[in-house]
Amino acid sequence: MRRSKPKSEHMNSVIQLLGISNAIVDVLAHIDDDFLESIGAVPGSMTLIDEERAHEIYSMMGPATEMSGGSVANTIAGFANLGGSAAYIGRVKADQLGDIFNHDMRSLGIDIRLQPGTDGAPTARSHVLISGDGQRTMQTYLGACTELSVDDITPETIGIAKAMLIEGYVWDLPEGPALTRKAMDIAAQNGTAVALSLSDSFCVQRHRDSFDDAVRNGVDIVVANEDEINMLMQTNSFDESLDAIKSYDNLFAITRSEQGSVIVHGKEKAVQAATLVDKVTDTTGAGDAYIAGFLFGWVDDRSLAECARLGTFCATRVIQQVGARIEPGLLEDFD
Amino acid sequence: MRRSKPKSEHMNSVIQLLGISNAIVDVLAHIDDDFLESIGAVPGSMTLIDEERAHEIYSMMGPATEMSGGSVANTIAGFANLGGSAAYIGRVKADQLGDIFNHDMRSLGIDIRLQPGTDGAPTARSHVLISGDGQRTMQTYLGACTELSVDDITPETIGIAKAMLIEGYVWDLPEGPALTRKAMDIAAQNGTAVALSLSDSFCVQRHRDSFDDAVRNGVDIVVANEDEINMLMQTNSFDESLDAIKSYDNLFAITRSEQGSVIVHGKEKAVQAATLVDKVTDTTGAGDAYIAGFLFGWVDDRSLAECARLGTFCATRVIQQVGARIEPGLLEDFD
Repeated sequence: MRRSKPKSEHMNSVIQLLGISNAIVDVLAHIDDDFLESIGAVPGSMTLIDEERAHEIYSMMGPATEMSGGSVANTIAGFANLGGSAAYIGRVKADQLGDIFNHDMRSLGIDIRLQPGTDGAPTARSHVLISGDGQRTMQTYLGACTELSVDDITPETIGIAKAMLIEGYVWDLPEGPALTRKAMDIAAQNGTAVALSLSDSFCVQRHRDSFDDAVRNGVDIVVANEDEINMLMQTNSFDESLDAIKSYDNLFAITRSEQGSVIVHGKEKAVQAATLVDKVTDTTGAGDAYIAGFLFGWVDDRSLAECARLGTFCATRVIQQVGARIEPGLLEDFD
Repeated sequence: MRRSKPKSEHMNSVIQLLGISNAIVDVLAHIDDDFLESIGAVPGSMTLIDEERAHEIYSMMGPATEMSGGSVANTIAGFANLGGSAAYIGRVKADQLGDIFNHDMRSLGIDIRLQPGTDGAPTARSHVLISGDGQRTMQTYLGACTELSVDDITPETIGIAKAMLIEGYVWDLPEGPALTRKAMDIAAQNGTAVALSLSDSFCVQRHRDSFDDAVRNGVDIVVANEDEINMLMQTNSFDESLDAIKSYDNLFAITRSEQGSVIVHGKEKAVQAATLVDKVTDTTGAGDAYIAGFLFGWVDDRSLAECARLGTFCATRVIQQVGARIEPGLLEDFD
């Protein structure tokens, strides 16, 4: 993968990181112990639901709080708050939730590349059901996200970026496989590095062969947690996955919760321990924050070990706060 | 004022408390020290803005969190969470923010008396700008609220309630004075006690004579803080206000922050001290919570001293939590 010129020589239109993902507003509510059973949901899972089911579940939920969400959108927001220049491709409708999503991204200086749709399905929302023990179960209505199309991916909307981060969940969209292929082809022409977030292990299970094909043809960087990488490598343990990775040219950044993270690139390997904290407030967004920090180091040409240390620093901060996104000024304490 | 029969003898359609107020979704964001100056806002104030200005301020704000709000709506939500039966009259549009507002109220068992409007202005939102020291400055676009009309107030929408709580802010609406008069007339026919929340001292300043007329003709209970009651009584001190109150027949429940609260009804007077707390997290909603607790006691025919103790208990809890509304189960610790 090619690294572009230092930031100071960039044209204004060149940005460091472009994200392509599902643009989702989170609808967060606390639930009683028996709520998940009553809707037949597996604790901790992410389930895709249709509009009718979304209304049904929403009507059963208690009072909620709304905020912009989505995994790679969280990473892009965090990357911007770290001080990086970022752009974003994701579909919302021109409705109030779409306004909220785009407002929150734009207010961080992120360049929104698609205009909101004027018709079609409403902006996506994910009902985030928080159990007494803090575990989150998501029931996601993709709405306008499903209308992200091959035609949305052009040299103009992609622009010139040092790196592009695509979310595995995009493969769930009708034109997802085709549009991600087109995006990777444009990236290749521009010398843009392609990073793929594997999203979740069930998503990897749904699209395992497509993901493997993408990783071998077009993806430069794979970001994943242990479950996801084991699913992609079709192994039963992390050690087996590390063995299987040897047949890939890609850079792998793998997070392992309290076991820290491991970065592998060919023969290069960096192991980063997790930081001990007094109290974990909320683990939501830890992985997304890690990726933001890791890629922030990477686009700045820092060493892999330093990228891992940055990712860990960001994830450690996010688990000690309420809210999934990296706040501004976080790097002031990084040394 | 007449007290209705005990709850067990009520028909199903009889509820304890009906609220009439502005139905608003709060858009909360943290701001830098110079933000208020840049938009020309007085710290801690509530300013009414039009749609264009709302878009302008929103575009200048950072990422936000959305949740249902509005002063009397918060009280009604809290009253329902205390276990009271409640109904609500306020105007939203049939849009996503309107869905959010009505969902959050309905999910607490509150009977929503008006259908969302299908055209006209969008659902109201209040941009709640939170300074570094926690102070909140509100820029409120009333939107659909302004369409609350005299025709919305009928014997059917008012129903039969033990008490009705009207928000002073309703007088800011074009038909506000006329519709509140109609609501008070229906209440009088039904033997429903009318409570008026004075909302804020600037609101009292805007409508002082109308408020005084309402208090002397139709209102049974006045709930206010010290600034508001001084503005209504046109005095410079609380002691002078206590003197002036002697010419009124109403029940006054007056909150005084860390100086507790004072209840006056003719010659009856109850003084309730504030509860000392280790740490005040967020004073937002303290007054609304006090009113919820006070009225919860009042509709249950408790003594004024006990009503004040209940109000104080609720307010004390709310200032120790993040979020303006009373959570379910709060009364479990009340003795």
